[in-house]
Amino acid sequence: MAEPADYFISRNNALPAAPLLASALQNHAQHMLKLYRHPLSGHCHRVEALLSLLALPHELIEVDVLRGEQKKPAFLLKNGLGQVPVLEDGDVTVADSNAILVYLALRHDPTGHWLPREPLSAARVQRWLSIAAGELVRGPGDLRLHALLGKPVDRAVAERTSSAVLSLLESALAHARFVTGEQPTIADLAMYAYTARAPEGGVTLAEYAAVRGWHARLEALPRFIPMQETRPR
Amino acid sequence: MAEPADYFISRNNALPAAPLLASALQNHAQHMLKLYRHPLSGHCHRVEALLSLLALPHELIEVDVLRGEQKKPAFLLKNGLGQVPVLEDGDVTVADSNAILVYLALRHDPTGHWLPREPLSAARVQRWLSIAAGELVRGPGDLRLHALLGKPVDRAVAERTSSAVLSLLESALAHARFVTGEQPTIADLAMYAYTARAPEGGVTLAEYAAVRGWHARLEALPRFIPMQETRPR
Repeated sequence: MAEPADYFISRNNALPAAPLLASALQNHAQHMLKLYRHPLSGHCHRVEALLSLLALPHELIEVDVLRGEQKKPAFLLKNGLGQVPVLEDGDVTVADSNAILVYLALRHDPTGHWLPREPLSAARVQRWLSIAAGELVRGPGDLRLHALLGKPVDRAVAERTSSAVLSLLESALAHARFVTGEQPTIADLAMYAYTARAPEGGVTLAEYAAVRGWHARLEALPRFIPMQETRPR
Repeated sequence: MAEPADYFISRNNALPAAPLLASALQNHAQHMLKLYRHPLSGHCHRVEALLSLLALPHELIEVDVLRGEQKKPAFLLKNGLGQVPVLEDGDVTVADSNAILVYLALRHDPTGHWLPREPLSAARVQRWLSIAAGELVRGPGDLRLHALLGKPVDRAVAERTSSAVLSLLESALAHARFVTGEQPTIADLAMYAYTARAPEGGVTLAEYAAVRGWHARLEALPRFIPMQETRPR
């Protein structure tokens, strides 16, 4: 087994500043981050993107959600709601994609940029995290799962919700480079995958130029991982 | 018009410690918090509860959601998604109930207890805020709106989601007094109203003793405001 230092450096292709390296080594000496995920899930994508952006060494563990592995007893011990993603960081287990983003930003981002503490900025981030857990799922998310996997959906409601989310994003991005301002935060990651892959659910982005520009800005960030493209059935 | 000091003290029936009072006066000298709300909304309740728990002077402004006032242009300027609640704090406007909770906790709670910064605690709070924006709405929330207002709902899906949320709460509360530990946080407020009023949607709490005990503990907090009871049609 490689020494922690070798491993860390080989994964990142660069030697971080000393305090960062010391922190990473201390962390790695005890354990490696493990992410339980499925590649079709935009909820998993947002976490994978942050792990990569923060250059955190981690192991991806596939959960066969198409066969219901996430609803089996072994996985329900990790997340009682039976959903991916789940993160394990030593003896800490965190379920819920937004919660994992908060955890990683506060625990593993020394800059603090990904989750600002200033009250109004933090509230703006939370607003998008709420939408990412709510309207984003009930709109573009459900339309995509309907197209890809046949999930039953009230099409009129989902299309209305999808339009509302995309219009809100479009107006937020008319004034700023990222959804909460001039710097990317975990809110951008939470909103990215299901809007970028909305066309897989039959939702066009043609009239949302600012949203498309924002997708491109995120994709251009160093170490950003795009969401895989999937062909509808 | 009363002097700010008179007003603040009369609303709270007690003189806070000096730094708190100075902060409150400084704040009040500029403006009063305004909350746009409707009494049927559990999303509004969670914010009203925190305003009261923090003893923050505020004005409640009714929005006639039953007649669609929240979808009219004047209100859409405050919240592009056309939803209550919305908070105004001087020239700051915050939409989304969870975002308002985050804002109030970080801006107006000098103790920091309502939204801890420690990474794992913050992640636990976020997990419940996500559920409060997602499964709580799609389960107990939708069943209640169906019963009270005739909102169309896929009953089987909503009942399954409702059971999943209540079971998760029950197991979390088997080990702790509040949903994230021994102290209440904004996560408890976000989860309270739609679970406490779940019976209005035909959901029984009979088998969830720990959830009922938790409701009682929240209701016993000084200055807690219960969610109003509403009779189904």
